[in-house]
Amino acid sequence: MNRLELRGLLDAVCAGTLTPEAAHGRLLQFLRHAPYEDLGFAKVDHHRSIRQGFPEVIFGIGKTPAQIASIAERIVNAGQNLLVTRSTEEAHTAVVAVLPDAVFNPVAGTISLRRSPPPVGKGTVAIAAAGTADLPVAEEAAVCLDMMGNTVDRLYDVGVAGLHRLLAVHDRLTAARVVIVVAGMEGALPSVIGGLVDTPVIAVPTSIGYGASFGGLTALLAMLNSCASGVSVVNIDNGFGAAAIASSINHLP
Amino acid sequence: MNRLELRGLLDAVCAGTLTPEAAHGRLLQFLRHAPYEDLGFAKVDHHRSIRQGFPEVIFGIGKTPAQIASIAERIVNAGQNLLVTRSTEEAHTAVVAVLPDAVFNPVAGTISLRRSPPPVGKGTVAIAAAGTADLPVAEEAAVCLDMMGNTVDRLYDVGVAGLHRLLAVHDRLTAARVVIVVAGMEGALPSVIGGLVDTPVIAVPTSIGYGASFGGLTALLAMLNSCASGVSVVNIDNGFGAAAIASSINHLP
Amino acid sequence: MNRLELRGLLDAVCAGTLTPEAAHGRLLQFLRHAPYEDLGFAKVDHHRSIRQGFPEVIFGIGKTPAQIASIAERIVNAGQNLLVTRSTEEAHTAVVAVLPDAVFNPVAGTISLRRSPPPVGKGTVAIAAAGTADLPVAEEAAVCLDMMGNTVDRLYDVGVAGLHRLLAVHDRLTAARVVIVVAGMEGALPSVIGGLVDTPVIAVPTSIGYGASFGGLTALLAMLNSCASGVSVVNIDNGFGAAAIASSINHLP
Amino acid sequence: MNRLELRGLLDAVCAGTLTPEAAHGRLLQFLRHAPYEDLGFAKVDHHRSIRQGFPEVIFGIGKTPAQIASIAERIVNAGQNLLVTRSTEEAHTAVVAVLPDAVFNPVAGTISLRRSPPPVGKGTVAIAAAGTADLPVAEEAAVCLDMMGNTVDRLYDVGVAGLHRLLAVHDRLTAARVVIVVAGMEGALPSVIGGLVDTPVIAVPTSIGYGASFGGLTALLAMLNSCASGVSVVNIDNGFGAAAIASSINHLP
Amino acid sequence: MNRLELRGLLDAVCAGTLTPEAAHGRLLQFLRHAPYEDLGFAKVDHHRSIRQGFPEVIFGIGKTPAQIASIAERIVNAGQNLLVTRSTEEAHTAVVAVLPDAVFNPVAGTISLRRSPPPVGKGTVAIAAAGTADLPVAEEAAVCLDMMGNTVDRLYDVGVAGLHRLLAVHDRLTAARVVIVVAGMEGALPSVIGGLVDTPVIAVPTSIGYGASFGGLTALLAMLNSCASGVSVVNIDNGFGAAAIASSINHLP
Amino acid sequence: MNRLELRGLLDAVCAGTLTPEAAHGRLLQFLRHAPYEDLGFAKVDHHRSIRQGFPEVIFGIGKTPAQIASIAERIVNAGQNLLVTRSTEEAHTAVVAVLPDAVFNPVAGTISLRRSPPPVGKGTVAIAAAGTADLPVAEEAAVCLDMMGNTVDRLYDVGVAGLHRLLAVHDRLTAARVVIVVAGMEGALPSVIGGLVDTPVIAVPTSIGYGASFGGLTALLAMLNSCASGVSVVNIDNGFGAAAIASSINHLP
Amino acid sequence: MNRLELRGLLDAVCAGTLTPEAAHGRLLQFLRHAPYEDLGFAKVDHHRSIRQGFPEVIFGIGKTPAQIASIAERIVNAGQNLLVTRSTEEAHTAVVAVLPDAVFNPVAGTISLRRSPPPVGKGTVAIAAAGTADLPVAEEAAVCLDMMGNTVDRLYDVGVAGLHRLLAVHDRLTAARVVIVVAGMEGALPSVIGGLVDTPVIAVPTSIGYGASFGGLTALLAMLNSCASGVSVVNIDNGFGAAAIASSINHLP
Amino acid sequence: MNRLELRGLLDAVCAGTLTPEAAHGRLLQFLRHAPYEDLGFAKVDHHRSIRQGFPEVIFGIGKTPAQIASIAERIVNAGQNLLVTRSTEEAHTAVVAVLPDAVFNPVAGTISLRRSPPPVGKGTVAIAAAGTADLPVAEEAAVCLDMMGNTVDRLYDVGVAGLHRLLAVHDRLTAARVVIVVAGMEGALPSVIGGLVDTPVIAVPTSIGYGASFGGLTALLAMLNSCASGVSVVNIDNGFGAAAIASSINHLP
Repeated sequence: MNRLELRGLLDAVCAGTLTPEAAHGRLLQFLRHAPYEDLGFAKVDHHRSIRQGFPEVIFGIGKTPAQIASIAERIVNAGQNLLVTRSTEEAHTAVVAVLPDAVFNPVAGTISLRRSPPPVGKGTVAIAAAGTADLPVAEEAAVCLDMMGNTVDRLYDVGVAGLHRLLAVHDRLTAARVVIVVAGMEGALPSVIGGLVDTPVIAVPTSIGYGASFGGLTALLAMLNSCASGVSVVNIDNGFGAAAIASSINHLP
Repeated sequence: MNRLELRGLLDAVCAGTLTPEAAHGRLLQFLRHAPYEDLGFAKVDHHRSIRQGFPEVIFGIGKTPAQIASIAERIVNAGQNLLVTRSTEEAHTAVVAVLPDAVFNPVAGTISLRRSPPPVGKGTVAIAAAGTADLPVAEEAAVCLDMMGNTVDRLYDVGVAGLHRLLAVHDRLTAARVVIVVAGMEGALPSVIGGLVDTPVIAVPTSIGYGASFGGLTALLAMLNSCASGVSVVNIDNGFGAAAIASSINHLP
Repeated sequence: MNRLELRGLLDAVCAGTLTPEAAHGRLLQFLRHAPYEDLGFAKVDHHRSIRQGFPEVIFGIGKTPAQIASIAERIVNAGQNLLVTRSTEEAHTAVVAVLPDAVFNPVAGTISLRRSPPPVGKGTVAIAAAGTADLPVAEEAAVCLDMMGNTVDRLYDVGVAGLHRLLAVHDRLTAARVVIVVAGMEGALPSVIGGLVDTPVIAVPTSIGYGASFGGLTALLAMLNSCASGVSVVNIDNGFGAAAIASSINHLP
Repeated sequence: MNRLELRGLLDAVCAGTLTPEAAHGRLLQFLRHAPYEDLGFAKVDHHRSIRQGFPEVIFGIGKTPAQIASIAERIVNAGQNLLVTRSTEEAHTAVVAVLPDAVFNPVAGTISLRRSPPPVGKGTVAIAAAGTADLPVAEEAAVCLDMMGNTVDRLYDVGVAGLHRLLAVHDRLTAARVVIVVAGMEGALPSVIGGLVDTPVIAVPTSIGYGASFGGLTALLAMLNSCASGVSVVNIDNGFGAAAIASSINHLP
Repeated sequence: MNRLELRGLLDAVCAGTLTPEAAHGRLLQFLRHAPYEDLGFAKVDHHRSIRQGFPEVIFGIGKTPAQIASIAERIVNAGQNLLVTRSTEEAHTAVVAVLPDAVFNPVAGTISLRRSPPPVGKGTVAIAAAGTADLPVAEEAAVCLDMMGNTVDRLYDVGVAGLHRLLAVHDRLTAARVVIVVAGMEGALPSVIGGLVDTPVIAVPTSIGYGASFGGLTALLAMLNSCASGVSVVNIDNGFGAAAIASSINHLP
Repeated sequence: MNRLELRGLLDAVCAGTLTPEAAHGRLLQFLRHAPYEDLGFAKVDHHRSIRQGFPEVIFGIGKTPAQIASIAERIVNAGQNLLVTRSTEEAHTAVVAVLPDAVFNPVAGTISLRRSPPPVGKGTVAIAAAGTADLPVAEEAAVCLDMMGNTVDRLYDVGVAGLHRLLAVHDRLTAARVVIVVAGMEGALPSVIGGLVDTPVIAVPTSIGYGASFGGLTALLAMLNSCASGVSVVNIDNGFGAAAIASSINHLP
Repeated sequence: MNRLELRGLLDAVCAGTLTPEAAHGRLLQFLRHAPYEDLGFAKVDHHRSIRQGFPEVIFGIGKTPAQIASIAERIVNAGQNLLVTRSTEEAHTAVVAVLPDAVFNPVAGTISLRRSPPPVGKGTVAIAAAGTADLPVAEEAAVCLDMMGNTVDRLYDVGVAGLHRLLAVHDRLTAARVVIVVAGMEGALPSVIGGLVDTPVIAVPTSIGYGASFGGLTALLAMLNSCASGVSVVNIDNGFGAAAIASSINHLP
Repeated sequence: MNRLELRGLLDAVCAGTLTPEAAHGRLLQFLRHAPYEDLGFAKVDHHRSIRQGFPEVIFGIGKTPAQIASIAERIVNAGQNLLVTRSTEEAHTAVVAVLPDAVFNPVAGTISLRRSPPPVGKGTVAIAAAGTADLPVAEEAAVCLDMMGNTVDRLYDVGVAGLHRLLAVHDRLTAARVVIVVAGMEGALPSVIGGLVDTPVIAVPTSIGYGASFGGLTALLAMLNSCASGVSVVNIDNGFGAAAIASSINHLP
C-alpha cells in the first residue's frame, strides 16, 4: 500500500463507498508485518512507501539470487511494487520462479513488477547522457523514475565536445522540472547544462573511461567542483540514487 | 532587475499604472550592458537573475579585494542584489568604499547588500548541522538562502552520536521542503536524516576533523555512499552550492 | 594444549587425580616442538595458545591448499583446535584428506576443527551488521568468536537508513559486553551504535559498495573519524581481527 | 553527577544516611536540564556520564575560545568533571575567566577540572610510545585516561629499531589490562607488541614523520594491516579516542 | 646569442657587411663558456637558445634570491634574454642589484629582461582563462610567450557555466594557431574549446578551487580525460610549460 | 567528404572540369544528414571532418559490437574514412558484416577502412617507445596517424636505462616535426627526449609496470612534472589522443 | 661473454695459453652485434654483462611468449646466461622450443639457462620473508641472486608478530653481507631487522594482504618510513630489483 | 666509543702500550650507561656505534630544542660524535649552550660535533643532484656521509633535460663505490644514472616541484619504478637515510 492508495481508502470511507469495517480490514492486513519483516539475513521494510513515498528498493550487489527472490516475494506479497537494481539474469531467474510477471531490463540491470500505479510527479525529468557508453546508468535512472511515477525525457549522446548536439536539445532541457546529467570521462556536461537551465541538476558520474579516469573518480570530482550553481552529485554509476532524489523533487507539491 | 521585477513592470503596464514609455526606458537601461560587461579580468553577467533566478554571486577565493569591489559595484549599479562568498574583512573594506551599505558576516564569510526583495520560495529550507564546528558552512548556506528568498530553519549540533538530540527535532525536519545537512568527520548525518524524511536532502561535507578526515574527503565519500535514498552531495564546505540547489528546488512552482 | 588445559593439568596434580609423572609426560609431549615447528615454507607456532589465549590461526590468502593442509595437520597433531580463515572449497578438500573432521563454512570462508573446549568468555559479543551483503564478514567474525569460546548475538540488517530496525534491538546491544559493528558503504553504523552503548565497539568496514566506496576505503575512513567515543577499527573485511580483539576483551577477568 | 555518585546516592538512601526527600531534591536538580541544554551553537549533553560512563568531552578544534568557555561552564555547573581536548592557551584563558581552577596541559593540549572522583578502572592501562616526538599524543591519552579513572603506566621511546629498549619493558606491558601503542613513521610498534601480549591493543598512529608518511597515513595503514591479532586502531593523533575505548575496556566488570 | 642572431651573423658575412674576422670574434666570445658554466650550485646552459630555440629559463622555486641573481647575471652576460618564473619581489630586488633593467611582473611572478628580439612565431597564441582567479597562471603563460616571440590574444573569464561569454569569442579562438586553455575547479573548458577548434589545444589546470579540487588535481584529471581530441595537458599552474610547447608549435616552419 | 575533397570540388568548378550542377548535387548529398544523424543511442557527427580535419573516430570502450557496427556503417555511408579505437575481434566481426573491407589491427586494437586519401601533413611524426611492452599504445598512435595523413617514424625500445640505444636514433628524433613519446614504469623518456629536441613533444604514459606503477599513474605524474620544456601529456594509454594532437600540429600550414 | 670471461681471456693471453689471434677472434665474435641487436620490437643489449656485471634480464610482463623466446634466443646465441622474470608456463613453452635446456621455476616465475659461471660475490645474501605468502617474491630474488653468482641464505616465516622466530635466526642475519627483507601487510620486518644488523638492508614490499593493504602500498609506505637506518626500498613484489642491488653490493671488491 | 676506538684499545693492550687495567677502566666508563640511558622522554642508545657502526643520530622533527640539547649532551658526554638532522637555528642555540663547539649547517639543517675520527669507508660516495633546489637534501646526505667517515664527491645540477651536463661527469660517477642520486619533479635521474654505472644507486626523491609533484610523491613513485636495475629508494627528502645505507655499503670490508 502506498500513499496514493492510503489516501484513496480514506476518501472512499469519506464518500461512503467503503464501509469503515472494510477499510479497517484492509488497513489491518497492511499493518500485519509492521514495521518490518525479519528474514534473518534481511529485515524487509513494508512501511517505506508510506514513510518515504516509494517502497523498499532491493540493491542487488552482494546478495545471492535466492536472497533477492526471497525479499522480492515478501515485498510483492505485502502489496508493494517491486524494483531490484544492480541485478543479473541469474537473479531474475530466481525471482520469476516465485514472481512470474517480474521483468528484467538487461541494459539497466533492473528487475521490476508493477502492482499498482505510483503517485504521479508534477513534471518531466530529463536525462541527458554524454555518450553511448553512459546508457546503462542513464537507463537505470530511467527505469527507476518510471517505477516511481515520473515522465522521462531521454537526451542521449550530447557530450560537450559537440556543443551543437547539446544546443539542439536546449528546449527540452529547459522544459524539464529536474535534469539528471550522466557523464563519464571528464564529467563536464553538468557544468554546461547547469549554466543553461535554472532547474535543479542532479549529476551522475559514470565509470566510463580509462587510465586517469580512475573508474569514474575524475568525473565525480569534476562534477563536485562544478562552476555552475544548482548542481549536486550522487555516487559513481548511481542511476538509482539520481532517480530517487529527482523523483523526490518532482513529487514536491 | 530580477524575474519578479520584470513581471511587476509588465503587470504595471497592463494595469495602466506605468506608461509603455516609462517601461521602455527602464528596460533599455537594464539591457544597456547586455548580456555581460567586460572588465578585462572579469565579464560581469547582468542577465543571470533573469536566466537563472538569482544574480551572479561573486566567489571570493583568488580575487583581490579591488577586483571584488569592482565587480560588486557593477552588479549593484545594474540594480542587482549583491552576494559575495568566501570573503574577508579586507574585501569588505574595499567594497564599502564603493557600496557603503554592504554588510559583512564574519561567520559565514559573506558580503551582501539587498536592493530589492528576491522571489519567495514555497516552503522552508531546514539546515541541520552535526557539530558546533560546522557552523561557518551552515551559516554560509543560511545567508545565501536568505538572499535568494528562502525561509531558513537552523537545527545545529544534532550529530548522530547523540541520537536523542536529533530525534528531538524530527518534526522540524519533516516540516521542511528541502533539508540541507552539514557534517564533517565521518559524515553520517545525511544517511540518518535521509532515512527519516522523504524530502530532498542536500548533503554538505565539511573540512572539520583531523588525521584521516583528510580535509573533508572522508565526509564527502561517506555522503556519496549514503545508504539512504534521496541524498545528493555538493563539494566540501560548499554552503553556497547547497543553498543554490535547495533554493532552486524551493522555488519550483 | 591451551591455557585451560594447562590449568586443569596442574589442578589435577594438586588434587591428586594425576600423578606428577603423568603430568610430566604430557607436558614433555607438548613441549617437544617448542617453540615452533619449521616446515621450510612456514614456522608453526605451537605455544601461541599459551602465550596469546588461542592457537595459531591460518590465514588462507596466498597459501596453496597443500601448504594449508600441511600446517593444519601440524596444529591438530599438536593437540590444538584448527581455524583457517579466508579459505576455499579447494583448501578444504586438501585439509579433509588429512583431517577428515574439518568443517568448511562457505559463507564465512572458514575451515575449523575443535579438539577441546576453549576458555569461555565472560559475556556475550554482539555482531551488528548494516546490510545483507555484509554477512560474509559478520559470519567470519561469528565463527572465529565461537572457536575462541564466546557467545555470539547476531543483529543483522540494522543499517542507519532504517533507524527503527536498529532501535528495535537496542536492548540486545546494551546487554553485550563487546559490540562488533560490520558495515560497508558510508560506514555510519558504528557512530550511531557508539552513541547508544558504553561498551567497547569494534568497527569492521566491509568492501560492500561501488563507485566511490573504493573497496571499503570510504567505510574505513568514516569509522576512523567516528564522532562517537569508544570506537576502534580493524582492516576492511577483517572479521577475524574484530573477533580476536573482541574475544581478548571478553576474556579479561 | 556520574554513575558512581548515582549509586552512592541510592546506597545512602538505602542505608538511611540520606532522606528520600534530600535524594529527591538532588536528583531533580540534576535532571533539570534533561536530556541536554541548548546553547544555540551547541547542545550540551548533561546525561552522558550516566549513559556512557564519563561526561561529554569538549573537542576543541573548530570551536572559538568563547564557545569552549561557555560549554565548559555549563558542564561544570551541572556538576560534571571538565575535559577539553585539542585545546590552546587562548581557550584556557577564556575558560579560567569562568572556571578559575581549570588546568591547562600544554603538551597534551587539554584543559581539565575535576569536581568528583570518576569510577575507578580494574587494572592499569599501559601507554607505549615509539619516539619522543609521539609524546603529545601519548600525553593526551594519559590525561584523558586519568580523568576517566584509570591508572596509567608510561613506556616511552621504545620504537622497534631498538628492540632491547622494548624488551626491557616486557613485564610492564604484560602486567597491563589494556595497552595503547602510539607510533608514527612506519607504525610497526603495535605489531611487535601485539605479538608479545594477549591483552587488547589499541593502536594510535601519529602524524610524526615526513615525506611519504603523509601526515600519519602510512602509520595508520600499517596498523590496520597488522599481522598481530588483537590490535584495533583509532584515528591519526587520536589520543582521546584510544583513551576512551581503553577506559571502556578497563571499566568492564 | 640565439638562432636568429646566429643566422644574422652568417648572413652579414655572406653579404660582406661583416668581416669574417669580426664574426669569428663574436662567435668565440659566445662559445667561451661552452657548453655550460658551472657555478657550483648550478650549471648555466649558455647554448640552449641554439639547441632549443630560447635561452635557459630560471625556475624560481627552491632557489635563494642570491642564487637567482647569480644565474641571471651569467645568462645576461652571455648575451641572452632573461626570464625567471615563479619569482618574488625579494628575488627581483636581488636581480636588479646586478641587472638594473630587469622587470618584475607581480601577477605573473616573472622577472624578465630583453636584450635582443627573439625569433618571431608564425601566428597568434590565444590564451583562454575560465575565471578571474586563473589570471596569474594565464599571465605567466602570456609573459613567457611574449619573451619567446609570440603574439598573444587574451580571452579571460570565459568559463563553461556562461556559454554565451565563450561563444562571443569563437572567432578569436579559431583565428589562433595554438590555443592555451587555463582553468581550475572542474577543468571543463578545454573539452568545450577542443570541440570548437581544430588547432592544437594546450590545457593548463590551475590550483583554483577548494575542497575536492585538491589543489588542481581535479582539473588536471578532467583535462587528461577530455572527450575532445587534440588536447594535451601540462602540470597544474604550469603557465610556463604551456607557453613553451605553444611557442614550439608556433615557431614550426 | 573531408577538407581536401571540399577544396578539390571547388577547384574543379573553378577550372571548369566540374559543372556547378554536379558540384551542387554532391554537396547536397553530403549535407543531407547535417549536422549529425541520431541513432537513438548515438548522434553520428558527419561534419566533423570539415570542422576538425578528420572524421568522427569511434571510441570502442563501453559500446556493444552492434552499436559500433551501426555507427561505422553510417560514417562510411556518408563517405567518410572509418577509424575505431579500443576495439576487439568481436567488434570487427560485427563491422565486417556490414563493411567487408574493414581491417582489424590486433596489436593496435583498431578497425579502419580508408575510402579517400586524408590531407597530408607537412613533416614526419616520430614515435619513440621505451620498451617492447609499450608497443600496443605506440601502434594505436601509429595507425591513427597514418589514417590522419601523417608519415610515421617508429623508434622502439629506446628506454633511458640504455642511453646508447636512444642516442643512436638522435638524428631521426631531430628530423621529426613532432615527437610522440610512449613510456610506462617511471616515464622518464619524455624528459630526456625533451632535452634533445626543440620540436613539440607529446608524452603518452602507458599502464605498463606493476606495484607502485599504479596502472600508469606513476608514468603520468612523472611526465606532467617533466623538467624538460616543450612537453605536454595525454591520458594513460591514449595513443589516439597523442596522434590527434600530433596530427593537428603536423597539419598546421 | 661476461667480465669474468673477459678477464680470463686476457689472463690466458698473458699466460701464453691463448694466442693473441685466437683471443682476437673470440673478441670479434662477441663484438659482432655491438652494442645491441635490433629485433624491431626490441633492441637486445649484448654488452650489458660487460657494462653492468650481468647480462640483460628479460622482464616478462607485457611481452608475448614469441617475443620472449625471440629475445632469449639472441641472448643465449651471444653466449650470455638467460634470465626471464615475471614469466609463465606459456612463455616457457615458447622458449624451450628454441632453447631446450631452459628451466622454469613456477614459484619464482622465472625462466633461466646458465651457459657459463657468473662472477662470484664476496659474501652471503640473506633473504628474510615475513610469511609463507611472501615466498614467490622471495624466491624470485633467490633465483636471480643465484644466477648473478651469489650465495643465498633463506630465512622464511619470521614475521614480527612472532619475535622468537626472528630472534632464533639472528646469527644468520648478522653473518650476511647484505639482507633482503620481504614482507607484505604492515611491512614492519625491515625496521626490526634494520635495528638488529649493521649491513645494508634492501626492503621488498609484497602485495600480500587485503583491504587497506592496497596491493602492497601500505607495506611500501611503511618501509620507506622505516625508523631504522640503513634501509632502502624497491618496488612492490620486485624480487628481481632487490636481487640486482644486493648482488651489486655483494660484488663490490 | 666507536668500533675503531674499541679496536684501537685492544690493539694497544696487545702491543703493550696500554695496561689491561687502564683499558678495563676505559671500557667500564663506556659501559656505565649500558645499554641505554633513560631521560623519561627519550632513551639514549649509547651502544649503537658498536652495534651499528655509527652513534645514535638525533632526528630533530617533533623534538623541542631543550629535548635535543639534553639528548645531545648525553651523547657527547658518553664520548660519541654528535649528529642532529632536520634541525633549526633555535635548536642549535639550545645545543651550543651545553656543547659550545657544536656546528650548525643551515643548508643541510644539521648540528654536528666530532669528538673522534669515525671508521673510514673504502671508496668515494658520489652525490648527484638534478637541480639547484635539491641542494638542501644533497647537503644533508653529504654532511652525514662525512660524519660517518666517507669521502664525498658532489655532482650538482646534472638533471636529465641537459644530458651533456650529466655525461660530462660520467667518469666521476663510475669512479664512485656508491652513488646517491637526488632529484625532485619527475625523478628521472636515477634511471639514467642506473643505466650508466654498475655500482649500487641509492635514489632520494625530493619534495621539489609543484602541482602534480605532490610534495615529492611523483619523484618517489618514479624512482620505485625505475627501469634501471641496481636502484633502491629512500623516503622523500631523506638525505640522512641515503647516507646511512651508502655508508653501510662503503664500509663493507
